[in-house]
Amino acid sequence: MKNTQFLLAKRPIGTPTRDNWDQVQVDVPPLNDKQVLIKVEYISLDPAMRGWMNDAKSYIAPVQIGEVMRASTVGVVIDSNDPAFKEGDYVFGHGGVQQYAVSEGKDIHKIDTKIAPLERYLGVLGMPGMTAYFGLLNTGLPKEGETVVVSGAAGAVGTVVGQIAKIKGCRVVGIAGGKDKCQYLVDELGFDGAIDYKNENVKQALKTHCPKGIDVYFDNVGGEILDDVLTQIRMHARIVVCGAISQYNNTTPVKGPSNYLSLLVNRARMEGIVVFDNVKHYSDAASEMAKWIGEGKLKAKEHVVKGIEHFPETLLMLFKGENTGKLVLKVDNE
Amino acid sequence: MKNTQFLLAKRPIGTPTRDNWDQVQVDVPPLNDKQVLIKVEYISLDPAMRGWMNDAKSYIAPVQIGEVMRASTVGVVIDSNDPAFKEGDYVFGHGGVQQYAVSEGKDIHKIDTKIAPLERYLGVLGMPGMTAYFGLLNTGLPKEGETVVVSGAAGAVGTVVGQIAKIKGCRVVGIAGGKDKCQYLVDELGFDGAIDYKNENVKQALKTHCPKGIDVYFDNVGGEILDDVLTQIRMHARIVVCGAISQYNNTTPVKGPSNYLSLLVNRARMEGIVVFDNVKHYSDAASEMAKWIGEGKLKAKEHVVKGIEHFPETLLMLFKGENTGKLVLKVDNE
Repeated sequence: MKNTQFLLAKRPIGTPTRDNWDQVQVDVPPLNDKQVLIKVEYISLDPAMRGWMNDAKSYIAPVQIGEVMRASTVGVVIDSNDPAFKEGDYVFGHGGVQQYAVSEGKDIHKIDTKIAPLERYLGVLGMPGMTAYFGLLNTGLPKEGETVVVSGAAGAVGTVVGQIAKIKGCRVVGIAGGKDKCQYLVDELGFDGAIDYKNENVKQALKTHCPKGIDVYFDNVGGEILDDVLTQIRMHARIVVCGAISQYNNTTPVKGPSNYLSLLVNRARMEGIVVFDNVKHYSDAASEMAKWIGEGKLKAKEHVVKGIEHFPETLLMLFKGENTGKLVLKVDNE
Repeated sequence: MKNTQFLLAKRPIGTPTRDNWDQVQVDVPPLNDKQVLIKVEYISLDPAMRGWMNDAKSYIAPVQIGEVMRASTVGVVIDSNDPAFKEGDYVFGHGGVQQYAVSEGKDIHKIDTKIAPLERYLGVLGMPGMTAYFGLLNTGLPKEGETVVVSGAAGAVGTVVGQIAKIKGCRVVGIAGGKDKCQYLVDELGFDGAIDYKNENVKQALKTHCPKGIDVYFDNVGGEILDDVLTQIRMHARIVVCGAISQYNNTTPVKGPSNYLSLLVNRARMEGIVVFDNVKHYSDAASEMAKWIGEGKLKAKEHVVKGIEHFPETLLMLFKGENTGKLVLKVDNE
């Protein structure tokens, strides 16, 4: 049985291109004792993957040259020497960008496709959902009646942040690129307002949409938007630093927030989060979010692209802002 | 009776010059009911004064053109229609840059020159001491055995931050400009290390002095030093944003911290403080610090310049890093 894989061929400078990848076909190896063979069905594409391609100290080791690109995956067990898993079980894991993944059984867990479709376990019920849930609730600390702003608002994390903030009784304003995304946030997800950063003056629009100022800002993008938000924060505001997608493909140094002294003026706080810190509480969060989905309070949306061979170009959709909702790559081309 | 005053004549662009001030002599007005007349003895010179000269929204209103420059002061009551104050009482207040100040009695409080010399109430027992005490303890949250780094370490706030961190059982490293200041920090104040940013590579020196990384950074300077520190913070580090003196005379935008994504990698926090928020707890803090001074654990140092006429040049000493300890202007020229 042949396994198509994407290996990191060389580290990118700026935006990754096809040259950064080796698309290879290798034999699926025979399983050892206790190993599990998974047919990968969906591969999660996340902004964080860009960081893993750099040879830099971070919250997780870089992917090495020649290694299968790291990615979260969902798939089905097709062979197992581990009594905890049997053929036909659906599992979440970090299978990487490939058709078949071999697991030692410790880094995968079963998921229930009766509760939600498989790909949703890469979105609302997966890492992006957990990131939104813990980042907003434990670090953003939104209180009823407060104003919450989220950037990357139409993305996998942003859509969930905004909806949870609504559930918690906040006024919610999303920042996203393009009229369609903004309309989706307001019309479909119930945001109180949306700002199209590609066509609006963000600072001015924040003044309009957040007349009392911003209590919580959940930042997925960094750059100019972070600086604009800093001019509009309220006393004791909390800024959750989840990511800075506008800066990930920079070939120049990251743009630091020039307006950071607004933290002083407003006795405000800026704090970084990494979802993995909450692993012990994932299942509680997933239960609560599944309940919200059941009640119609939390809508999930995946943006599915088919065919593992399209991985390099599909990854770039994140940086171009071409996805609405959670971007996933369906391994099969059908 | 004549009163020499410094009025804000025009707003500075970059570093203030004599042109920004009007030195005037006016009559001391007769007192209304309840007013108190104070002969100002010492005027506090603080980096924050530069910010008050700008016409910008901040934590306090700007000084208006034509107004006496705002400043904290200590002095002696020479006339009083307020039964709470009598001639000869020493008081702390916000008398401004002038020889005589009229107070309504609400914005002054008595100080005891038997406990400490008058000028100390502008330093350790005044705003800088309070800033250090509350900023470090309530926002920096230092724990025994942790590493605390402070910039502007030989200044009014920095000297106190470092000494309190030592009292709390931390490893303390100061960043200051010049060999003499660094020696003073280590030899006189008991810092574990000091980095001379004018003659050393700060990032490299931080690696040497803080081999385990930095748990708490108390920032008085901003700029490149903040960026260097961000590369060396530990997990769950706390950065206290107290000031950014390196940026106050900029004619270009403030340099934002390019390395702020280190907050994410390290799940760290950056939080702004303003001392006035703690006004209800000043007297408790002053008592505790007076006790530490009595026990020899907290040393106070004032840098006194004589003659109110030297105000414009003396203020600039702060930005050139020419003071060690609390810079105060003695009104009389003797």
